[in-house]
Amino acid sequence: MSLLEQLVQAVEEPDQELAPRVQARLDDLTKPPGSMGRLEELVRWLCLARGSLELEQPRPAVAVFAADHGVALSGVSPYPREVTAQMVLNFLAGGACINALAGQAGAVVKVVDVGVDADFEDPTGLVQAKVARGTANFLEGPAMTGEECLQALEVGARVAGDLVDEGHDLLVPGDMGIGNTTASSALAAVFTGQPPERVTGRGTGLDDQGLARKVEVIKQALDRHRPDPARPLEVLQCLGGLEIAAICGFVLAAAGRRVPVILDGLISVAGAMVASRLCPAVGAYLQAGHASVEVGQGAMLAEMGLRPLLDLDLRLGEGTGGALALGLVRSAVAMYNQMATFASAGVSDREG
Amino acid sequence: MSLLEQLVQAVEEPDQELAPRVQARLDDLTKPPGSMGRLEELVRWLCLARGSLELEQPRPAVAVFAADHGVALSGVSPYPREVTAQMVLNFLAGGACINALAGQAGAVVKVVDVGVDADFEDPTGLVQAKVARGTANFLEGPAMTGEECLQALEVGARVAGDLVDEGHDLLVPGDMGIGNTTASSALAAVFTGQPPERVTGRGTGLDDQGLARKVEVIKQALDRHRPDPARPLEVLQCLGGLEIAAICGFVLAAAGRRVPVILDGLISVAGAMVASRLCPAVGAYLQAGHASVEVGQGAMLAEMGLRPLLDLDLRLGEGTGGALALGLVRSAVAMYNQMATFASAGVSDREG
Repeated sequence: MSLLEQLVQAVEEPDQELAPRVQARLDDLTKPPGSMGRLEELVRWLCLARGSLELEQPRPAVAVFAADHGVALSGVSPYPREVTAQMVLNFLAGGACINALAGQAGAVVKVVDVGVDADFEDPTGLVQAKVARGTANFLEGPAMTGEECLQALEVGARVAGDLVDEGHDLLVPGDMGIGNTTASSALAAVFTGQPPERVTGRGTGLDDQGLARKVEVIKQALDRHRPDPARPLEVLQCLGGLEIAAICGFVLAAAGRRVPVILDGLISVAGAMVASRLCPAVGAYLQAGHASVEVGQGAMLAEMGLRPLLDLDLRLGEGTGGALALGLVRSAVAMYNQMATFASAGVSDREG
Repeated sequence: MSLLEQLVQAVEEPDQELAPRVQARLDDLTKPPGSMGRLEELVRWLCLARGSLELEQPRPAVAVFAADHGVALSGVSPYPREVTAQMVLNFLAGGACINALAGQAGAVVKVVDVGVDADFEDPTGLVQAKVARGTANFLEGPAMTGEECLQALEVGARVAGDLVDEGHDLLVPGDMGIGNTTASSALAAVFTGQPPERVTGRGTGLDDQGLARKVEVIKQALDRHRPDPARPLEVLQCLGGLEIAAICGFVLAAAGRRVPVILDGLISVAGAMVASRLCPAVGAYLQAGHASVEVGQGAMLAEMGLRPLLDLDLRLGEGTGGALALGLVRSAVAMYNQMATFASAGVSDREG
């Protein structure tokens, strides 16, 4: 059995019989039933994922997967390609937005080079798992070879497994890669069936002309590869990225360990979208951290039946929107664990 | 000069010239300009409120104002009136939802009896500022006398002032009072000009029949009092509640001390709505913590030009939605203070 088959088979549907028991416990707490809305949903989600009526405060981790993209040379980003490697160093030094937000949420940040087109002189703290020095330009051929795609997927799965082994029980996939909103929007077009102009955004800040070029690049790629959404691994290989493949493996491996995952923006959702097509059961382990400004993200979330927790006009990636949502999870667990019941507090329940 | 006039005159419009300087500093950080959306907005809001380019992590406090409502005897809630006092004891014992969420956000909780219809045997920790044992039923006359209304407003102002004196620099008003969504929906109808059925919700969980009765009660009250939205203090006196008046004073006093306020649900927004009609300048010091399930809240927020930070199907009150939003503020400040700049991190900025 291949690693991918093993990953897929390890994911079990949660036991739905736990749900009414969790809700009964929520309804005993001193608040009108259901009045804490999506915080109650988060409690049910965590309990079902873990298969337990009891919850502890999570020990979350963010894994930022960095890789370069051949298509970045086709003028689809206002930033030069070198920024991918520069930002890896910024992550390692603690100076990026994800460092600040993860720190605030009590989450560790793991930085993974799964395909950056650079050598790092001082890779202290970096998970070195470079599969290739970036993808090929998908205008000229498949972004990855089949082997590269599986290797990147395996990197993500290994990182998730290591984090779980280290005691982390709530994971957030993050991304860095100049050009990766182009690859992810192409995946969004394939998996949602929408035309590229409906699922393509401005990324880090393209103007109208740049956006038109980006849409055109995606159209050309779709024309060239004629991707079949029923073959998700091939779609990923032809149009995706090394970090997107890694995120796909990360999501599968986490779900297989019954560890819930909070998604971030367009790129992490693209990776999860592929995972959910390979293994629909992963859906029960996922929450969407936020609604990105990038329209392709919302289209894929709708396809996956996920409703974002936050909507704050974010479009940065790195895992930032997922890390922000960790605060809501912490609050949900605090509510569940710390509130008094109607009986214990001597509060009268509803009449009639 | 009356206390209310003093409160109103103390509120100064923030210096808008600071805004571009804050944004320039945000744009120096290693992220595409504007890519952190509403977190950047929160940074600008805090800087303008405080009149400073520098921010520290806030020392937040939640003040829960509790009071009873004469209209609660008209069958507008599925919970008995005694719950107001029972929940005050629950707040003091740390067993309510606001205790769990405030604790998670690093905020203290101050509980204020501004009008509960009960005597507390052990009021340890309670701010005892009872103006009356609940309001009168506004179906029979004004909810408060003019004097009671001003006294309750003064209680709120004093609580805000005390919290600021104790070093708190970010405030969240909370509420407890069986019947108070009826009073607040009546205020929403007056100040938004919408018919009661458009701004009235199910509160703690009314069924269709209960909701119809609640709407009818509000219609009768509006017919009786013929409130003039151009006279906000009179509207508050006739239709409001002691905790709503206190929240109005709390918001005015906080803004007068240049201390920003994060609003919670329907009741806190009703108090802030009155404050903003008495003193439009308070708007600059306000953020809406969340979009409540209670429709009157959204109608008033739209009237005040405030866009909710969170939308999590909450309908509890107590300050819970405001407390949840504190996590976003902390993350915004961490982003502003901890991120590297393009220059310091050696990251290439946009091309051309």
